[in-house]
Amino acid sequence: MYSFMNDYSEGAHPRILELLYKSNYEQNIGYGLDVHSEKSREYIRKLIGRQKADIHFIPGGTLTNLTVISALLRPHQCVISADTGHINVHEAGAVEATGHKVVIAASKEGKLYPEAIEAVLKYHSDEHMVLPKMVYISNSTELGTIYSKDELTRIHNVCKEKGLILFLDGARIGNALMSKYNDLTFKDIANLVDVFYIGGTKNGALLGEALVVCNDNLKEDLRYLIKQKGALMAKGFVMGIQFEALFQDDLYFRLAKHANKMAEIITGALTELGYSFYVPPCTNQLFPVVPNHVLEFLAQKFDFYIYKKIDQDSSVIRLVTSWATTQESVDRLIEALPKI
Amino acid sequence: MYSFMNDYSEGAHPRILELLYKSNYEQNIGYGLDVHSEKSREYIRKLIGRQKADIHFIPGGTLTNLTVISALLRPHQCVISADTGHINVHEAGAVEATGHKVVIAASKEGKLYPEAIEAVLKYHSDEHMVLPKMVYISNSTELGTIYSKDELTRIHNVCKEKGLILFLDGARIGNALMSKYNDLTFKDIANLVDVFYIGGTKNGALLGEALVVCNDNLKEDLRYLIKQKGALMAKGFVMGIQFEALFQDDLYFRLAKHANKMAEIITGALTELGYSFYVPPCTNQLFPVVPNHVLEFLAQKFDFYIYKKIDQDSSVIRLVTSWATTQESVDRLIEALPKI
Amino acid sequence: MYSFMNDYSEGAHPRILELLYKSNYEQNIGYGLDVHSEKSREYIRKLIGRQKADIHFIPGGTLTNLTVISALLRPHQCVISADTGHINVHEAGAVEATGHKVVIAASKEGKLYPEAIEAVLKYHSDEHMVLPKMVYISNSTELGTIYSKDELTRIHNVCKEKGLILFLDGARIGNALMSKYNDLTFKDIANLVDVFYIGGTKNGALLGEALVVCNDNLKEDLRYLIKQKGALMAKGFVMGIQFEALFQDDLYFRLAKHANKMAEIITGALTELGYSFYVPPCTNQLFPVVPNHVLEFLAQKFDFYIYKKIDQDSSVIRLVTSWATTQESVDRLIEALPKI
Amino acid sequence: MYSFMNDYSEGAHPRILELLYKSNYEQNIGYGLDVHSEKSREYIRKLIGRQKADIHFIPGGTLTNLTVISALLRPHQCVISADTGHINVHEAGAVEATGHKVVIAASKEGKLYPEAIEAVLKYHSDEHMVLPKMVYISNSTELGTIYSKDELTRIHNVCKEKGLILFLDGARIGNALMSKYNDLTFKDIANLVDVFYIGGTKNGALLGEALVVCNDNLKEDLRYLIKQKGALMAKGFVMGIQFEALFQDDLYFRLAKHANKMAEIITGALTELGYSFYVPPCTNQLFPVVPNHVLEFLAQKFDFYIYKKIDQDSSVIRLVTSWATTQESVDRLIEALPKI
Repeated sequence: MYSFMNDYSEGAHPRILELLYKSNYEQNIGYGLDVHSEKSREYIRKLIGRQKADIHFIPGGTLTNLTVISALLRPHQCVISADTGHINVHEAGAVEATGHKVVIAASKEGKLYPEAIEAVLKYHSDEHMVLPKMVYISNSTELGTIYSKDELTRIHNVCKEKGLILFLDGARIGNALMSKYNDLTFKDIANLVDVFYIGGTKNGALLGEALVVCNDNLKEDLRYLIKQKGALMAKGFVMGIQFEALFQDDLYFRLAKHANKMAEIITGALTELGYSFYVPPCTNQLFPVVPNHVLEFLAQKFDFYIYKKIDQDSSVIRLVTSWATTQESVDRLIEALPKI
Repeated sequence: MYSFMNDYSEGAHPRILELLYKSNYEQNIGYGLDVHSEKSREYIRKLIGRQKADIHFIPGGTLTNLTVISALLRPHQCVISADTGHINVHEAGAVEATGHKVVIAASKEGKLYPEAIEAVLKYHSDEHMVLPKMVYISNSTELGTIYSKDELTRIHNVCKEKGLILFLDGARIGNALMSKYNDLTFKDIANLVDVFYIGGTKNGALLGEALVVCNDNLKEDLRYLIKQKGALMAKGFVMGIQFEALFQDDLYFRLAKHANKMAEIITGALTELGYSFYVPPCTNQLFPVVPNHVLEFLAQKFDFYIYKKIDQDSSVIRLVTSWATTQESVDRLIEALPKI
Repeated sequence: MYSFMNDYSEGAHPRILELLYKSNYEQNIGYGLDVHSEKSREYIRKLIGRQKADIHFIPGGTLTNLTVISALLRPHQCVISADTGHINVHEAGAVEATGHKVVIAASKEGKLYPEAIEAVLKYHSDEHMVLPKMVYISNSTELGTIYSKDELTRIHNVCKEKGLILFLDGARIGNALMSKYNDLTFKDIANLVDVFYIGGTKNGALLGEALVVCNDNLKEDLRYLIKQKGALMAKGFVMGIQFEALFQDDLYFRLAKHANKMAEIITGALTELGYSFYVPPCTNQLFPVVPNHVLEFLAQKFDFYIYKKIDQDSSVIRLVTSWATTQESVDRLIEALPKI
Repeated sequence: MYSFMNDYSEGAHPRILELLYKSNYEQNIGYGLDVHSEKSREYIRKLIGRQKADIHFIPGGTLTNLTVISALLRPHQCVISADTGHINVHEAGAVEATGHKVVIAASKEGKLYPEAIEAVLKYHSDEHMVLPKMVYISNSTELGTIYSKDELTRIHNVCKEKGLILFLDGARIGNALMSKYNDLTFKDIANLVDVFYIGGTKNGALLGEALVVCNDNLKEDLRYLIKQKGALMAKGFVMGIQFEALFQDDLYFRLAKHANKMAEIITGALTELGYSFYVPPCTNQLFPVVPNHVLEFLAQKFDFYIYKKIDQDSSVIRLVTSWATTQESVDRLIEALPKI
């Protein structure tokens, strides 16, 4: 049984474990003030081209989302999200638990677009309703799709014009940037959004997300707010060391590239065999439409997630590859796939 | 420069790293539903003598405290804590941020006692005040002291009589149980409290606290509440594996014992040299009173925390030992200490 | 200029003012424990046929909604509402500010129905999502429509079967019960819902909603929770006296009946003149579709709310009548209406 | 049985009822945007000498406190209060329920002083603790004492120097300003604090507090935040009309003066009879120390609150007078008092 369920099934890339091992007996300062975290910050700042960015390490995505959103909004302000957004559906009401409404905007293939944001703004007309103040997007999205430079620029423009904070969830930002359809760089992203994070958990780390605050106005007292949400880890250096390993050379990108590559091979095979896709494949998450008998057959050999029923006869499944996905397992999957 | 600042300066015990390494390429189910987490749970259940206890792994102490307290209280209910309690002072208002008042009770050497709890109950007389519903204690305490079986039993009794939930913060429970003054067992604790946790971060793990829910009435839907607070880790198995390493034999206890032993040696030397202590030394946190010139002198060679000024001439400092503290560094500290 | 904007433009029915005046120099106990509040409770208990119901007086609708919902849900639980529900749209995120997600269900003419509730339950499958625990409906609805006994019974049944709390917002319950299409009684409502309120503000009182808790399991400590939300008024007797005036005879019903009667006359005239309605008129809120030139013409003489644009040429407006609407103003409105 | 329990036992001053009656059939705009509310605002602005102050009417004190504090603080910021402060003790955790810790400072006779505030600031040293950002005081205090101009100026100065918001709870501000020991004016208060409120409920209104925002930086979006807390009343004009009646001439001051006068007479008698006071009498709340047999005897004829036991033989009771307290009832109380 091989799992294409997600990209967090295995531990960490060996290079990360090695650096943890190597630095194990050093005495490091707690709470992210250590030299490894600082080195990681320097690597990331260089990469994104912003020497003044504030960078904080937080152990997981939901924790990062709820911390950022509650830190930057006043109580009556809401965050706009795609209906498919992670904060809207899959965080057990984490954002609302901090007091903020998640207001839904229309989306296409998991992506927000300016007109949808503007429609939300227009609808929220007075003090009897919440006040939209932040836009939440993810890249890659929950559907594995990615924003083009033009699309992100247009969202940036509407946010700037309307005074909205643009927050990008980058739990899978490596996969987005390494997509063959991508035309964005880390520098572009840092220029176009106010705050974003670089996901470690889903790209080869044991855990950890690197929160990057580009907008100077949003930096004040964030360590207080991270601490208050329980997100300031005593052994913050455990995350600092991992990001050091990921960014001291191009490991972060190679891992994401590998995951995408594995997905591409599967995509090629599926296409050749006549399968269609619920959304166009771009990154390491694939959403093929499969007949139910194929689904049942595959499920005997592979773990994956059933995304939704299409009709009586077929369903959309989700196949996820990762830094750890082997060529061999991909070959076995392809072998198992019948023509349709 | 050697640090006696805290017990989370180094990485993890090598045995933990080895098990992480060994299991690195396994594919594990996410969110704590994996086999390693399950094995850890079985080890812990056996140790505490409660086959039906629910056990959840959460990455840090503040996150565990805020999750447990907000999960188990209704909005108008408050938690009683010693004035020195971690939730009252050092969590940046994490508990209040979930909507609950932390009500302070008098304490002795960091410990709550039944009369102090009863005084709080008596004072809170009607619906214009919050309703006390939970008692929070830690063992060992913020001052390194420990509860005796009799003391914990008496607190248990008042909680039972008054319908209060008893929650024990065990970030340093290993040090408490391995104290030479201790007469409690893990089984006792599980019998006497409703919910507690076993700290990993401060006893040799990279991160992780094992939350143990003994009282059946408090188990419902806790995974929802852990998820909502951002505390349900995708790679939950990273914590599961570490607790497996700690509890598959007596590693957890040996590590705590070592930390206490190092502290004992320092205590002996300090005593012999004429130093007094702010509270009696029991575990791996020592609070000697030192003249200011000694403080300054020590600070050139060692890192430690200045706890409070006593008077113009002297201060209380905090020295903390850990699983990683070496005999050599202890010797160097002792050598450096002048007689007074 | 006459206003059909809403049903809270005027003060209070003179009978209410008289009773306030008459009892003005009595010394009453604070916080709703006075004899007038108690008398009101007795009148209401008799009316709804439940001697054991708990009744609390709260100054406004949003305050009642946020207090009830946050009092009865655990943090991970959400409330299901029609997309048009007041708590979803027009309370500035009041419910989310207490930590709970408002989950939207499909609705027809402002009303929820069992299949929509069941669809929400089915979708919320695990601990990564919020847990539906309460259903919020209003009667009459935001669109002035009402639930039939059969419809409410079916919602009651699905709630009972699925363990959901059924909460009915009765800000305009008088108008619902006095509708000529209504087949529900106060006793039916008390039997079918767990908790509801009887609106005073919109039916002739200066302010005040009577919160009725029918389900014994939901009564505990509500006075604490009302106090905590700032909803326990020092001079609670000011509300008690008003509800006494409304319920010591049938004043409450006569006021609602009058409002409905005025709306019926307008409905008749509009129908005769060829206007259609966005939803079928039932109570004191009418939603006629009017050509834009009529809208502009009417707006010179009358205040009303523009509900939504239908197309380039026409809009839905909202006309609201109340206990204080005069026959004369209704006549003037009808006179002003052109045929279409 | 006559009650000296509090200053909210009776309805409203007849002049207020008359204005409610007179304007009863006017059609007013909802949510505080009506002409009466606007007139009241103008009267108050003139009185406090600040034409640009924002003024909002909120139905009660706890609701005002929780709304203001949560509106103006970021999540990690706390409010400093005297240990005896209303928000700390008698609001059922209302402030904490909005997410903020109430941090206690030492007080003298119910009053905060600069050194106590500075001690709190000094103690809160880093991001592991909450960040003090607001100072909450009340005038008159919970103990009936008042701030002198010098005392308030010194608190103002420390707040200005340290960047703290100064919030004054004026539920009984009329009694403070009419005290014979007072040297503050409304203009002074408006100059020295950032935000305060003028209590109606305890000075002759049916309900209502006038929230005055002096600091321009704190005005933004307050109507959203008031709405979100359920404090924006549909019939806001009911409060507007009452404050109009109170401030169109000097009614507000006369009512407070009367209450103080009645208290003074009692104070004189008590003093002559040999009673001492727990705190020096200044306003309409008196805290005499009475032997237990006197307490029991008085309790047969009068209602009052027992504040605290002094020792085996005597207790502090609280006697409160109001705008409605009659000379006759004061005479009867004095007659009933035995010499000691």
